[in-house]
Amino acid sequence: MADPRFFAAAGPFTLRELATIAGAEIANGDEARRFVDVAPLGAAGPEDVSFLDNRRYLDAFRQSRAGACLVAPDAVKAAPSGMNLLIAKDPYRAYAKVAAAFHPPRAFEPGIHPAAHIGKDARIGEGCRIEAGAAIGARADIGRRCHIAANAVIGEGVAIGDDGWIGPGVSISHAVLGRRAIVHGGARIGQDGFGFALGPQGHLKVPQLGRVVIGDDVEIGANTTIDRGAGPDTVVGDGTKIDNLVQIAHNVRIGRGCVIVAQVGISGSTRIGDFVMLGGQAGLTGHLEIGDGAKVAAQAGVMRDIEPGVTVGGSPAVPQRQWLKGVALIERMTRKD
Amino acid sequence: MADPRFFAAAGPFTLRELATIAGAEIANGDEARRFVDVAPLGAAGPEDVSFLDNRRYLDAFRQSRAGACLVAPDAVKAAPSGMNLLIAKDPYRAYAKVAAAFHPPRAFEPGIHPAAHIGKDARIGEGCRIEAGAAIGARADIGRRCHIAANAVIGEGVAIGDDGWIGPGVSISHAVLGRRAIVHGGARIGQDGFGFALGPQGHLKVPQLGRVVIGDDVEIGANTTIDRGAGPDTVVGDGTKIDNLVQIAHNVRIGRGCVIVAQVGISGSTRIGDFVMLGGQAGLTGHLEIGDGAKVAAQAGVMRDIEPGVTVGGSPAVPQRQWLKGVALIERMTRKD
Amino acid sequence: MADPRFFAAAGPFTLRELATIAGAEIANGDEARRFVDVAPLGAAGPEDVSFLDNRRYLDAFRQSRAGACLVAPDAVKAAPSGMNLLIAKDPYRAYAKVAAAFHPPRAFEPGIHPAAHIGKDARIGEGCRIEAGAAIGARADIGRRCHIAANAVIGEGVAIGDDGWIGPGVSISHAVLGRRAIVHGGARIGQDGFGFALGPQGHLKVPQLGRVVIGDDVEIGANTTIDRGAGPDTVVGDGTKIDNLVQIAHNVRIGRGCVIVAQVGISGSTRIGDFVMLGGQAGLTGHLEIGDGAKVAAQAGVMRDIEPGVTVGGSPAVPQRQWLKGVALIERMTRKD
Repeated sequence: MADPRFFAAAGPFTLRELATIAGAEIANGDEARRFVDVAPLGAAGPEDVSFLDNRRYLDAFRQSRAGACLVAPDAVKAAPSGMNLLIAKDPYRAYAKVAAAFHPPRAFEPGIHPAAHIGKDARIGEGCRIEAGAAIGARADIGRRCHIAANAVIGEGVAIGDDGWIGPGVSISHAVLGRRAIVHGGARIGQDGFGFALGPQGHLKVPQLGRVVIGDDVEIGANTTIDRGAGPDTVVGDGTKIDNLVQIAHNVRIGRGCVIVAQVGISGSTRIGDFVMLGGQAGLTGHLEIGDGAKVAAQAGVMRDIEPGVTVGGSPAVPQRQWLKGVALIERMTRKD
Repeated sequence: MADPRFFAAAGPFTLRELATIAGAEIANGDEARRFVDVAPLGAAGPEDVSFLDNRRYLDAFRQSRAGACLVAPDAVKAAPSGMNLLIAKDPYRAYAKVAAAFHPPRAFEPGIHPAAHIGKDARIGEGCRIEAGAAIGARADIGRRCHIAANAVIGEGVAIGDDGWIGPGVSISHAVLGRRAIVHGGARIGQDGFGFALGPQGHLKVPQLGRVVIGDDVEIGANTTIDRGAGPDTVVGDGTKIDNLVQIAHNVRIGRGCVIVAQVGISGSTRIGDFVMLGGQAGLTGHLEIGDGAKVAAQAGVMRDIEPGVTVGGSPAVPQRQWLKGVALIERMTRKD
Repeated sequence: MADPRFFAAAGPFTLRELATIAGAEIANGDEARRFVDVAPLGAAGPEDVSFLDNRRYLDAFRQSRAGACLVAPDAVKAAPSGMNLLIAKDPYRAYAKVAAAFHPPRAFEPGIHPAAHIGKDARIGEGCRIEAGAAIGARADIGRRCHIAANAVIGEGVAIGDDGWIGPGVSISHAVLGRRAIVHGGARIGQDGFGFALGPQGHLKVPQLGRVVIGDDVEIGANTTIDRGAGPDTVVGDGTKIDNLVQIAHNVRIGRGCVIVAQVGISGSTRIGDFVMLGGQAGLTGHLEIGDGAKVAAQAGVMRDIEPGVTVGGSPAVPQRQWLKGVALIERMTRKD
């Protein structure tokens, strides 16, 4: 049960309603039966809805006391008797919808807190909530229904699309964000890229004259940093999700639908295609081309371009099979006495 | 000498008083002699107390001009003549107590700054200090004698135990913290975990319905991020110390007395036992079990469970002896021409 | 063209003026011709100035439509006909000067925002701008013409030299900064180092009695953390540039003119010479000596001292040639079937 101090609750919902919400089909279930919450397989009781998305949890599924469960078609035969089944092609996605129905985001009260600071000629769309201590720079353009949390700092001229959520203590400058942006606490967007003309007489700062341009439906993790471009822009494509403590340097271009796990670092001017996955703590050097659908293992160190669809691992990174072969080789050589 | 702009000073203390503070015994010393400060072996003078905790500094000890020194029993014979000795089983722990006596934390003036923002029905315990720009959400519950620094943001319903110190610009939501918490500047606690139902039609955000639950005597470093659970909670046990820029993902459970060095990343649902040590920049993939007392070397990449008490290193991580053998092997092969 | 929402613009400038600004010589050019902006080789038109700094862009140079270009002497012969050439020994440094002329930093209006918080006996130099929500502690000493951005928190007694720029949401305590400091958003300077007397009965916090001392012309990246010393100070030398999300532990001493790329971690008490380069995500263990001019490759794990001028790579790090040999060796062994 989600802690009511932190989460709203809705429901109960009948199995029929849940099927509609989830886009699922009912198998041997009681359509009128009511459910009160979601819960993991091991914790769920007769009034809860659970889900099975990973074969590693098949045993937990077999023993679960959940009243209903979202499952893929091939798991039906393993279900304990009496469990109501909701069949979905993607049970995790179906669960996300059901969980959101039971625990809808808390509606926020719109309004500009008297202790928020709104710069000259800033435009604040209707239905926004601007919390205490938030500072919106002159000429900024904030879309409708945006939520700017306490002590966030939005720089001069920054544009944020409709339905954005900007977390506490975030700072954004020199940037244009699309719709439905989610920026978690402490993320830093738009500061100077790390550019210097190096030399023994002192490193001369090179003006960073680009922006950060972020598409629609992008999520950016807590304390992540995205520097603005040096001349070209730094770009993050629609639907890309970025975890916490990620570093994205100037001029990097990231495509659509990428997933970038925590503590990844991407060096300047590297270009990343669509639907690329970067594992945690991976590092990419500058000026690379990473093809669509490429995957990079956690902690990999990428120093060369990656062809579309290829998976790499290791540091320096090589194709995954080769990397695993090297790992196995060392393991054999070091184990055998 | 600690800079008086930043540190309070107390004393002088006699050798007798210092022995009591340190829980140490006096060996060939002048009980009534007075000391004015602590200092490292190389910088200490006749009125200072120093300590020897590491055999690497034995030479510095032999040559030190410190008036007194905290030492383990076996170092007594190496002491320069005339030095007052305070014998302790754990000289570093004894030093911590003596240093805290000479430089006690500055007492803070309780009070709620007029520019702090206190939400509806928030409870603030007696003796708290809430600084300018701090924002405490509705129904939050702040214990006694807590210090909430400037521009920290405490979310709705968050509970913080007695004697907490929450640094500048921190944000905390969906969380329950124990007593004597120390949370350094910019740490982010309780934001959404990184959970999506992935798919080419777009990655669907999965509601994150758990909390962050933190025990007593936990310290959390600057700009560290701890995501709340997806359904279960993210948990940090009593007495665990976490350094700067660490990432702790949703559903991670960390036991008691762990030490987690800077820039470590722990992926979702991994469980860590008691008194585990994680070296700097180490990464752990998700859903692992790390046994009590395990140790992970800096930069290691842990992809499998670790048995209690085992030390691992390398990426992918293997038992330390095996890792070092592999390192030595490569070194031999690459050096020999 | 730099987005006018974010950047000021000056000019046009004649080729003659640009030569003076850049410290360059004109080769076969029209001194009186006017230019309006800087642009990359591929995007520049007849009224723009570009630069060639890297032989990888020679083809782009040959095809560029830029009206003028900053080039090294040896590139003159490759220039397209009709292009005005400005010859400079270091074209990138010359470009930095020209770009700054076209896009000078926006002048800021001095003044203390009514919603800034100035502690007792703090000294604010003339010409400072202190933005909304910034909190300056008691007895802090802020130099002339400093810009303290919104919601930054400057602790009691902190000293900042003239012409400092402190970004949004930064926190600084127990620190003395030189002139012309640039500290990007969310950086954390001066919090407690990670020091505990470890033990099964609980880890005892060791008082951290040193400071952070930062020289002139230092730049510190977004969300970077620099802990104060345990007794000695943590020191960053003149002209050193530090990127985002870097961790610098207590007692570390960094020399002059170093370049430290994003996500590097430096453990306690390590000493780094002058003009050292540390690649992204590199980690250094504690108590090391890194010689002047040493270079550390990205993701390297440094566990031993490095002699002056030596380049190392790998984890554990070894001299670069040896590292690359090991990489090549594994590659051969894993590729050959």
